[in-house]
Amino acid sequence: MAASSRTTPDSLPAWQTLKQHAQSLEHVHLKNLFGNDPGRWTHFTREVAGLTLDLSKQRWDDDTLEHLLALADEAGVPGAIEALLSGKRVNISENRPALHTALRLPPGASLDVEGEDVATAVHESLSQMERLVERLHAGQWRGATGKPIRHVVNLGVGGSDLGPLMVTHALADYRPDDIHPVEVHFASTMDGSQLADYLTRFNPETTLFVLSSKSFTTIDTLSNANTARDWLIGRLSKHGELPSANPVSDELIIRQHFIGVSASPDKMSEWGITPDHQLMFWEWVGGRYSLWGTIGLPIALVVGMENFRELLAGAHAMDRHFQEAPLAENVPVLLGLAGIWNVNFLDIRAHSILPYDGRLEYFAAYLEQLEMESNGKSVTGQGQAVNYSTCPVLWGQLGPNAQHAFYQLLHQGTQPVVCDFIAPLKRYDEVEDPDTRRHLKSQHRLALANCFAQSRVLMLGDDAIDDDGPRPAHKRYRGNQPSTTVLLDKLTPATLGSLIALYEHKVFVQAVIWDINPFDQWGVELGKQIATDTRKIIDHQGDLSRLDASSRGLIEAFWAAEQE
Amino acid sequence: MAASSRTTPDSLPAWQTLKQHAQSLEHVHLKNLFGNDPGRWTHFTREVAGLTLDLSKQRWDDDTLEHLLALADEAGVPGAIEALLSGKRVNISENRPALHTALRLPPGASLDVEGEDVATAVHESLSQMERLVERLHAGQWRGATGKPIRHVVNLGVGGSDLGPLMVTHALADYRPDDIHPVEVHFASTMDGSQLADYLTRFNPETTLFVLSSKSFTTIDTLSNANTARDWLIGRLSKHGELPSANPVSDELIIRQHFIGVSASPDKMSEWGITPDHQLMFWEWVGGRYSLWGTIGLPIALVVGMENFRELLAGAHAMDRHFQEAPLAENVPVLLGLAGIWNVNFLDIRAHSILPYDGRLEYFAAYLEQLEMESNGKSVTGQGQAVNYSTCPVLWGQLGPNAQHAFYQLLHQGTQPVVCDFIAPLKRYDEVEDPDTRRHLKSQHRLALANCFAQSRVLMLGDDAIDDDGPRPAHKRYRGNQPSTTVLLDKLTPATLGSLIALYEHKVFVQAVIWDINPFDQWGVELGKQIATDTRKIIDHQGDLSRLDASSRGLIEAFWAAEQE
Repeated sequence: MAASSRTTPDSLPAWQTLKQHAQSLEHVHLKNLFGNDPGRWTHFTREVAGLTLDLSKQRWDDDTLEHLLALADEAGVPGAIEALLSGKRVNISENRPALHTALRLPPGASLDVEGEDVATAVHESLSQMERLVERLHAGQWRGATGKPIRHVVNLGVGGSDLGPLMVTHALADYRPDDIHPVEVHFASTMDGSQLADYLTRFNPETTLFVLSSKSFTTIDTLSNANTARDWLIGRLSKHGELPSANPVSDELIIRQHFIGVSASPDKMSEWGITPDHQLMFWEWVGGRYSLWGTIGLPIALVVGMENFRELLAGAHAMDRHFQEAPLAENVPVLLGLAGIWNVNFLDIRAHSILPYDGRLEYFAAYLEQLEMESNGKSVTGQGQAVNYSTCPVLWGQLGPNAQHAFYQLLHQGTQPVVCDFIAPLKRYDEVEDPDTRRHLKSQHRLALANCFAQSRVLMLGDDAIDDDGPRPAHKRYRGNQPSTTVLLDKLTPATLGSLIALYEHKVFVQAVIWDINPFDQWGVELGKQIATDTRKIIDHQGDLSRLDASSRGLIEAFWAAEQE
Repeated sequence: MAASSRTTPDSLPAWQTLKQHAQSLEHVHLKNLFGNDPGRWTHFTREVAGLTLDLSKQRWDDDTLEHLLALADEAGVPGAIEALLSGKRVNISENRPALHTALRLPPGASLDVEGEDVATAVHESLSQMERLVERLHAGQWRGATGKPIRHVVNLGVGGSDLGPLMVTHALADYRPDDIHPVEVHFASTMDGSQLADYLTRFNPETTLFVLSSKSFTTIDTLSNANTARDWLIGRLSKHGELPSANPVSDELIIRQHFIGVSASPDKMSEWGITPDHQLMFWEWVGGRYSLWGTIGLPIALVVGMENFRELLAGAHAMDRHFQEAPLAENVPVLLGLAGIWNVNFLDIRAHSILPYDGRLEYFAAYLEQLEMESNGKSVTGQGQAVNYSTCPVLWGQLGPNAQHAFYQLLHQGTQPVVCDFIAPLKRYDEVEDPDTRRHLKSQHRLALANCFAQSRVLMLGDDAIDDDGPRPAHKRYRGNQPSTTVLLDKLTPATLGSLIALYEHKVFVQAVIWDINPFDQWGVELGKQIATDTRKIIDHQGDLSRLDASSRGLIEAFWAAEQE
């Protein structure tokens, strides 16, 4: 990705070495790798920024890692890291930098990108966001009829939804208690499901909508926004069907009940959002990398600006590590290389994300987007089709629940899967009632015991039990399934920031080695275009006959149902 | 699975024919299969029980289907269906029948299983459940201090959580409006996350817990239950730390604030649940097949018994179809065969579930359990290791949201994925406010347009656009990705019942062909055992030194964090 004249990764010397090396390890069981190396924990564990990464249960040895580090070097990872962090145009298909790391530069830092100091602009936008947050937290933001806002509904999808949703859920314990209570909600799906529910439950007088869309043309979000606007007008305006006792103007309603977050101020203004309530972000931030800036408004509304800045600081600590640590100690590089090894040399095509902490409920969904939208690609920087695998299928659930759902397949299925186990070490110290705290801390230990036990069984299989007498085949476990364990000292804004940045950089490292661009998403563009055409045909404004037989049949089924 | 003397599936004549046939189709693009057969929609579409199944976008032709039907016949699918529905001991490793279909037999039906009329027992347990539901809906169930119950928290995990959670979310529109309001919540994870949140928000006087565990030994659920019990006692009892103004006895608290659902009345009584508040179910219902009986209590509490019986009736309609329709018209059989074709002959190892209706938010998670826990197996009925693939990795999200998350990989990744698109045809007819209804119906059309467009693009690739001029490689789409579309006339209790039963039977058909047992889950047993050992070691009651270096390191990291 970095250099435009590079050879394909599979013709690099280290790739060839790794292919041969993989053959030599083919029949070596993971349990024997442990047996052969008493220092394995030390060799394959790294600590950084409140995180401990245990890579000892990957199906590799010291030689593997040495060859993988050579591959990273030959593929130009060090130069690519520098290019990313210094604001070079690493997003080659869209000819612009990818500057999510600039969003978390500390106050006072500067970053010159093509003659402009990006850091200053970033901190200005954070200050603007802070002013809006403070108005809401002071109860000073009033709806059109004069009542303080109580409910904020974020209208956004993809990057404008998943990041804020995941983080607000993870950090709900960090809600400040000395503020006017504002509840934050999310409506993302274009079919109006979540929104329809909110409209039956919330008071329009005290409900504010955040319209969050980088391009401000995302039809999912705009269709929700239009429904919300007409709902407000229908209930509060003198033009509405159900005017309130003191009807107000449409303009006042739109002014007081909508905040816009976008890279397009013109489109926000055109929609009716007043300039004071517009928050900017930039073309050089990809949607799935955008929670660190104004798209993170819902996060700041839940945890407060101080905690939001802690989240940024945690990510920045990982950025510094990524920039400064040598490859062999560089945690995102090591995590990325483990993935390359699994995908390209062990042919493991599925990757499961398993947090053992209910607060990380949306973390797997977040990573599904981050990894599969970034690296679900098959064309190199030179426009060649790749002839090696790139991003695996990634999915997950909370680990304790997945134990009762799909771990069966992990232990006894026919397909190999690599797992990431994620857990905090300390928890529940802040619970006030001593009896409840004691119970919950015991439940946390139970969760950790399960987390550690599962990766152990996946590794050892039958050998995890001492009494390994004869058992029927359906009660046997082959083991030899690789995993990574990521421990957080404690789940805080800072460690969550580090954790997210770790995966962002892991994705980048893999993209560099695979020679693909992790910052575009052309794979979704055609779908959008065809959906617009299809919508016209459904609305009887297009030519059904030019479609394939299946599409015709589906649309005719809808028309028939409409007539019932 | 059915016959104990059968040969392995890959040595059946039809399997061999299919292998050769797959080679002949290897270079045929899906778009050409459409071009070659104008009758494709009709050939590959079936309607049953309020569902329309479009299998025309599978990468197969009439010959493929003929060979697959022969495979089903050779593998004994017809006999296996009969064995399942008549209560034979199809769960061979546990030597018992799998009688989830008996749970939805209509009133008046009978089913003799080994000399006992199962249907009568089923309807008695439904009546008992109905009495509890009616007491709660009448506001007559009072907590220990005399106040009517307002919040019901389901404590269960796996099958005792996912089914009720998925269905209550899907059918929330069907809440009866003439009842005492009872809100239903779910706490599943052993780490106490959801429960800890509820304990800070709910009034113990008006909160009831449903303790749902087939064995009544599930530690996840019992640990949540113990925390809940001590929270109630701590607040309401004269023995508590925060006694209320009118403290009551511990016995009264446990009596009035807990319902038990289990196959073990002894264990329920031992825990303290009064016999009147015990709901039974049976060893012959697997957890992941259990929402149809008393485990469905949360569903009945949300939608009422009448709608709950509609859900059962919808599933029963699918059971009848499964039993009576010839293989070539049998929808669960056809869906199962499509999966076999993809997994075993096209080597597609990943399957994505994509509902275009926000109410089906948990449907993918539900299917992850249903499919991967049932068929994530690798040992035949004769105890032989299989040498063919069984269950693929299954995952999903709401389709509209996944478009902005992982569709990139579906369209341009290196790994083939088969998709199930699921959508209702009619929606939002009941919304009262005409303006909001108009908006929401338009949003529904938008969602359908996207649903139909995405399967079209996955099929056709670049050919989906008329103007197919020169474009760079990174803007090209290869297409040829197979999918199924399942349309519901409307999302109702009955069609949802049919939909779930469709997938249950699909899983069964595949298990029969793969010759594996879909009704056990030995793959989770070892994990439970090792977790208990690990917990002891974490609590300093076991020998750390006998563990591997990684497990030792992880536990020592926890001990170090505890000391901080």
